[in-house]
Amino acid sequence: MKSDNDKIHKAVALLVEQMQSGVLSHCNQNGERYPSGDELAAIVDLCYAILFPGFFGDSTSVNTDTLRYHIGVNVEKLHVKLVEQLIAGMCFDADDKKDPETRTADAREMASDFIESLPDIRDVVCTDVEAIFRGDPAAKNYGEIILAYPGLKAIVNYRIAHKLLEVGANPLMPRMITEMAHSVTGIDIHPGATIGRYFAIDHGTGVVIGETTIIGENVKLYQGVTLGARSFPSDENNVIIKGILRHPIIEDNVVIYAGATILGRITIGHDSVIGGNTWITESVPARSKVTL
Amino acid sequence: MKSDNDKIHKAVALLVEQMQSGVLSHCNQNGERYPSGDELAAIVDLCYAILFPGFFGDSTSVNTDTLRYHIGVNVEKLHVKLVEQLIAGMCFDADDKKDPETRTADAREMASDFIESLPDIRDVVCTDVEAIFRGDPAAKNYGEIILAYPGLKAIVNYRIAHKLLEVGANPLMPRMITEMAHSVTGIDIHPGATIGRYFAIDHGTGVVIGETTIIGENVKLYQGVTLGARSFPSDENNVIIKGILRHPIIEDNVVIYAGATILGRITIGHDSVIGGNTWITESVPARSKVTL
Amino acid sequence: MKSDNDKIHKAVALLVEQMQSGVLSHCNQNGERYPSGDELAAIVDLCYAILFPGFFGDSTSVNTDTLRYHIGVNVEKLHVKLVEQLIAGMCFDADDKKDPETRTADAREMASDFIESLPDIRDVVCTDVEAIFRGDPAAKNYGEIILAYPGLKAIVNYRIAHKLLEVGANPLMPRMITEMAHSVTGIDIHPGATIGRYFAIDHGTGVVIGETTIIGENVKLYQGVTLGARSFPSDENNVIIKGILRHPIIEDNVVIYAGATILGRITIGHDSVIGGNTWITESVPARSKVTL
Amino acid sequence: MKSDNDKIHKAVALLVEQMQSGVLSHCNQNGERYPSGDELAAIVDLCYAILFPGFFGDSTSVNTDTLRYHIGVNVEKLHVKLVEQLIAGMCFDADDKKDPETRTADAREMASDFIESLPDIRDVVCTDVEAIFRGDPAAKNYGEIILAYPGLKAIVNYRIAHKLLEVGANPLMPRMITEMAHSVTGIDIHPGATIGRYFAIDHGTGVVIGETTIIGENVKLYQGVTLGARSFPSDENNVIIKGILRHPIIEDNVVIYAGATILGRITIGHDSVIGGNTWITESVPARSKVTL
Amino acid sequence: MKSDNDKIHKAVALLVEQMQSGVLSHCNQNGERYPSGDELAAIVDLCYAILFPGFFGDSTSVNTDTLRYHIGVNVEKLHVKLVEQLIAGMCFDADDKKDPETRTADAREMASDFIESLPDIRDVVCTDVEAIFRGDPAAKNYGEIILAYPGLKAIVNYRIAHKLLEVGANPLMPRMITEMAHSVTGIDIHPGATIGRYFAIDHGTGVVIGETTIIGENVKLYQGVTLGARSFPSDENNVIIKGILRHPIIEDNVVIYAGATILGRITIGHDSVIGGNTWITESVPARSKVTL
Amino acid sequence: MKSDNDKIHKAVALLVEQMQSGVLSHCNQNGERYPSGDELAAIVDLCYAILFPGFFGDSTSVNTDTLRYHIGVNVEKLHVKLVEQLIAGMCFDADDKKDPETRTADAREMASDFIESLPDIRDVVCTDVEAIFRGDPAAKNYGEIILAYPGLKAIVNYRIAHKLLEVGANPLMPRMITEMAHSVTGIDIHPGATIGRYFAIDHGTGVVIGETTIIGENVKLYQGVTLGARSFPSDENNVIIKGILRHPIIEDNVVIYAGATILGRITIGHDSVIGGNTWITESVPARSKVTL
Repeated sequence: MKSDNDKIHKAVALLVEQMQSGVLSHCNQNGERYPSGDELAAIVDLCYAILFPGFFGDSTSVNTDTLRYHIGVNVEKLHVKLVEQLIAGMCFDADDKKDPETRTADAREMASDFIESLPDIRDVVCTDVEAIFRGDPAAKNYGEIILAYPGLKAIVNYRIAHKLLEVGANPLMPRMITEMAHSVTGIDIHPGATIGRYFAIDHGTGVVIGETTIIGENVKLYQGVTLGARSFPSDENNVIIKGILRHPIIEDNVVIYAGATILGRITIGHDSVIGGNTWITESVPARSKVTL
Repeated sequence: MKSDNDKIHKAVALLVEQMQSGVLSHCNQNGERYPSGDELAAIVDLCYAILFPGFFGDSTSVNTDTLRYHIGVNVEKLHVKLVEQLIAGMCFDADDKKDPETRTADAREMASDFIESLPDIRDVVCTDVEAIFRGDPAAKNYGEIILAYPGLKAIVNYRIAHKLLEVGANPLMPRMITEMAHSVTGIDIHPGATIGRYFAIDHGTGVVIGETTIIGENVKLYQGVTLGARSFPSDENNVIIKGILRHPIIEDNVVIYAGATILGRITIGHDSVIGGNTWITESVPARSKVTL
Repeated sequence: MKSDNDKIHKAVALLVEQMQSGVLSHCNQNGERYPSGDELAAIVDLCYAILFPGFFGDSTSVNTDTLRYHIGVNVEKLHVKLVEQLIAGMCFDADDKKDPETRTADAREMASDFIESLPDIRDVVCTDVEAIFRGDPAAKNYGEIILAYPGLKAIVNYRIAHKLLEVGANPLMPRMITEMAHSVTGIDIHPGATIGRYFAIDHGTGVVIGETTIIGENVKLYQGVTLGARSFPSDENNVIIKGILRHPIIEDNVVIYAGATILGRITIGHDSVIGGNTWITESVPARSKVTL
Repeated sequence: MKSDNDKIHKAVALLVEQMQSGVLSHCNQNGERYPSGDELAAIVDLCYAILFPGFFGDSTSVNTDTLRYHIGVNVEKLHVKLVEQLIAGMCFDADDKKDPETRTADAREMASDFIESLPDIRDVVCTDVEAIFRGDPAAKNYGEIILAYPGLKAIVNYRIAHKLLEVGANPLMPRMITEMAHSVTGIDIHPGATIGRYFAIDHGTGVVIGETTIIGENVKLYQGVTLGARSFPSDENNVIIKGILRHPIIEDNVVIYAGATILGRITIGHDSVIGGNTWITESVPARSKVTL
Repeated sequence: MKSDNDKIHKAVALLVEQMQSGVLSHCNQNGERYPSGDELAAIVDLCYAILFPGFFGDSTSVNTDTLRYHIGVNVEKLHVKLVEQLIAGMCFDADDKKDPETRTADAREMASDFIESLPDIRDVVCTDVEAIFRGDPAAKNYGEIILAYPGLKAIVNYRIAHKLLEVGANPLMPRMITEMAHSVTGIDIHPGATIGRYFAIDHGTGVVIGETTIIGENVKLYQGVTLGARSFPSDENNVIIKGILRHPIIEDNVVIYAGATILGRITIGHDSVIGGNTWITESVPARSKVTL
Repeated sequence: MKSDNDKIHKAVALLVEQMQSGVLSHCNQNGERYPSGDELAAIVDLCYAILFPGFFGDSTSVNTDTLRYHIGVNVEKLHVKLVEQLIAGMCFDADDKKDPETRTADAREMASDFIESLPDIRDVVCTDVEAIFRGDPAAKNYGEIILAYPGLKAIVNYRIAHKLLEVGANPLMPRMITEMAHSVTGIDIHPGATIGRYFAIDHGTGVVIGETTIIGENVKLYQGVTLGARSFPSDENNVIIKGILRHPIIEDNVVIYAGATILGRITIGHDSVIGGNTWITESVPARSKVTL
């Protein structure tokens, strides 16, 4: 047992040394907190409770009389938590040099802007629910979609995350929110993507939608569809150039079947149908039918 | 900060108005409760504790002497929880016009019927465990399969959900139970599918098995296999017709390798082998070998 | 209600009888405990808190002054929990005939060996973080990768699990640890695989890496890549032979794009690029480019 | 170990037999639930959150703008929980023969009556806070009294419990609520007592106030004061007669010092001072000073 | 902030030094665990669930049909937890030199002996409930006494603790169990006291019953009664002699009113009545009436 | 049901109006938080874990090797929590006009001062443990006193609270800490009292020690002892004057038996013995023996 303790103490000493050497970047700054996965999950839960009252949240006694109390409390809690996490996100950004008061003021404004947009988010999400319902013969009613469809979960988390990006949140926070959905649905939508109304994903496991993708209205994807990048240009130092427009544009009314792979900044013209397992790296005109 | 509060109060007012307009369907009915994800998870946990005592549940002291007490308590708790959720499922169905007492009586009977079938479910699940063990060189013993194989989890949740459908549960509840497995395994089996004994799925991520699929005995699937629909006929109003038989029939002793896609109401004849990444939309006779 | 109770009592009796018949293997041995999923999750959480202090664990007040206290406490807790679960793993192995004291002594040594290797694990994981950062134009900084990239989670859990296998843990425990990552990332890496430094997986859903796979340094995989077995030879009794080398060898500096399937004990030569959706069952020389 | 199991199984058999013999009254009726200590504690917590917003409850973000949302949600939750527990109280009363619907209707009305009286309860409690503040040189401000004075806690729980008795709750429920305060303060006030405004108890451990006590306005008690019964008359069968008026009447503006014992249906006249450790079993005129 | 850290590190160093100096006894032995307050609380909860099924424990669905399952599971859990805590108690005793296997065997036997006595404990507790009911005009029914009377709680915890002492538990464990009741009732009964059937305590705050007290059948105490020691003889080294019989003997059918103090190894003869606030240090013959 | 909702909405409106009228002081200020009972409880728990490692806290694996890690982590957590609650205490004080940065700096210094004094607190507490052990024939060892003696708990909480007062904490926080002990022990020690080394309280229920009490070394109290004020002088406006020295001085080596009441700024001379149930309002010379 002596040698057990020796090994342990030696490991502790080495691990502490690694951290303090400064070569590695995993060491926290003093006193500042990183965005918290648990808090972001609570933020997403509050959004769901606000967007779908009666389905999510502490809904056992929600009725039309008391709805406004619940919405009010949930919106207020959401504001408090958003402000905290938005500040945490700023602390995470090494280039952010704001003083604490400016950070708080900025975070409060971002949080309010996000909350102001919740009615609009709700409007769009309703179109997504309807699109899923219209396109799936197995869907019995809207409630089933809200409670049991992974595709909707991935879309709602994306819409929340995308809006946070728009109001100015540090990108880590939206990314963690879409990753939460990815981990339970297998659908990986980057928060930076732009996606129109009436968006539907069926089954969804394996779907990947990249950062600079643009998707129009009334588009439907099946499982395993990749909207990805084709290549990553590097600069003269052989470092990948970040931020280039590198993912596809999908126009309105397109259906893309399971396993299709669409790569690069190409355009799939409106009203096209892309068959399953296809591999597409060139633009396709409107009303095309592409099959294997 | 004043304007923050203005934005927030305005958002609350708009959100409440949206809900109360009645156009949207997301508003809870007064006093009735929807099926609860947490309660369904507890129901599934109880089923696992009953089917695999010593592996799941409060098993720290289960032994052959005290097993009957544990099974007894767990079966009783399962009955209580099932009755509650079965009633919640009925409330969810807008067409259900039963009075409360009939609902309770019906739910009690469904719950008892489900419990009565647990020994049979256990019998079938044992064949699934054995099928996985026989077919995977990496499987060291039955316990590893029970504790660590996502394929088994997806199958067990499906078998529970399918039986609930058979005893008459509102379809939302079984759907939520298979979706629980989908979210942690990436395997999406519709509770309406019919699946025979000795069923094995290896790795499993991306597997999709549609609502009207029929699978015989001793079938094995690998990751990424889709047993899906080919097209969704619409009625004269351009509304998708629900309930049509649209997924494949897989006969006994078939193996389907990774990434194969089988679409439409076609039949894969018994003792066939379907190669990886194949795309099949026409029936295949018994003892076929299909490769890319 | 009488008949409800009848059905329930009958089911209890049948279930108890099934368990006690001894034909089925799901019955716990008296007094001994199986490895616990919750405890293994706690072990993985402690490893993350030790490897990435400030990112995971009870990190609200970690700073360079107090880091050593936190590392110390976490390493000690890890040792205690490892010893318990390593013993549980031995009990799980029907062939293990050690007496309790030997089991404890062996478990203590394995746990110390594992802890002794943590600094090395941390070194390798740092190369993985860097490899992901260098290869993904969407990655803003190391922190984002640590907090939000499923690929890293799958790799870290694999590295923990693989080391446990090396120090002699019963294989069930490492398997459960990689399966935890599989369930939230869709990436299925067998703990028995051998994987070099600077390993990156992008998106990752659907990736499968089999038990006897060998991967060199600086390899990158995209979603849906399978490194699998081609066939499972059986012995004269038609029982699959376990333990055969049956998965690919991927040499240094290989990139494998989404959906590629590589099967059998073949070698992908160094500096090769394997295109998306390819199906490869034969070895490929160094510096190859394989496309669909 | 065999004999261990024998003893255990024998004990189980005996205990079950005792319960089922019907001689003992500790056996639950089928399907009906007794009032729950946890739920009553939650009810009391909600009352505190409503009466003292910002001091108790989920108060981290209560401000004057959002107060109404919080009060609204808490009042609604209170109503739901009260209805459940009021019904449980009725089930507890063996003489209650109401059908379920009448029970629910009655409980809903009682709960609403209780909630209607909350503003009045708040008014009275404010006088209690002020009385404590005026009489204690150690009290720094109202907040300290609300957060840290056991006397106030005992009084508030009593006022809640007494009102529940008034609206018709089964006596068990109010009794459990005052007993909650008794257990943490050592102050035992029967919910049936009648107590006027501006009531103060200092320190309080050991105070006992009996069921039929009447206390006027502006009365102050110190620790160890008993307002008790002197004797319990029995009927011809030697059974104690329940419900007799047997505790003292304390008129307005009386101070009773530590350890005084006042027994029987006697009257302490207004503006009297009762000294510490006195033993009083006869009425005392107004403006008396009684000392040891 | 630098000086903050200096103060903190200095304090840590001093505290560690104090512990390791060995002068102080507060340092844990390596690897062995002290009895756990939480576990003892769980043990007491299980005893309540077994003694009063339907009142305590997970009772939502207990009925006469399923009672035996619940009793069985609870008794089994109780046995497991008792064994652990009995072993922890032995470790706490510095003089205990047993090897681990003997400790476990002894603990298992003690636990079984305790469980064997549960039906008898239940018999006696029933007499206590009845005694309280007969003597309190405010008591509405047995259930109220079981759920809301602190006197009963103190007595039941005492009876459990006393039996544990009888089966041979280390005295710390019973002491912690009676102290749990003391902390919520203000009634301090030493587990070593001997107390007969039909024992009642009313209100109870401030009651003290010493280690060597003997109480007959059908005795009733009111709040603030002390059954204490008069003096503590010391040995030649001026060290108090432990274990001397120093508390009163109360014979059958005695009533002792509030605040009475009875000190020393004296006897209160049967059928006596001791008045409130009396101070008694000499024996009293049978059928006495002592008043202030 | 309509009238139910009417009553509820009316009650909400009235309650909101009461709060917003400003007459009542129970309304929280915007954004600032009051001291939290839960956080103070966590602070006390951390102090116990630091003062008594192995007895309290997460002690399952504390040994002499790893003690320093545990002390280090606990001291650091304590510092963080203390700073937060000390700031909350300042916000609670309406007269405190400091800006946020000064508050934080002051709180950090107070917290460090408190932590710096922990080794001294531990020294004194050790004398208290020893005093209890020497004076109680029922005490088997130090561990029993630490784990099960309410007297010690009350003293330790007092010593923590008193030191917080000394370092400058808002008085609410220390008061809440002694009240925590009061609620579970029935012993009410004001944090402002001054108490010397080797202090013992036996049983303790009902003990009251007032704000300006001074107690020397080696003093022992029994249950029900009051060290209180005799009268509260008022000013010309009939308002009680706060802060006057009004409680007794107890010199070294005094024993005070159960139920004694000592009132006013009088002195009990050293080496005196005060008998049970005595009532003392005048000073007593050294070496006195006072009996009833």
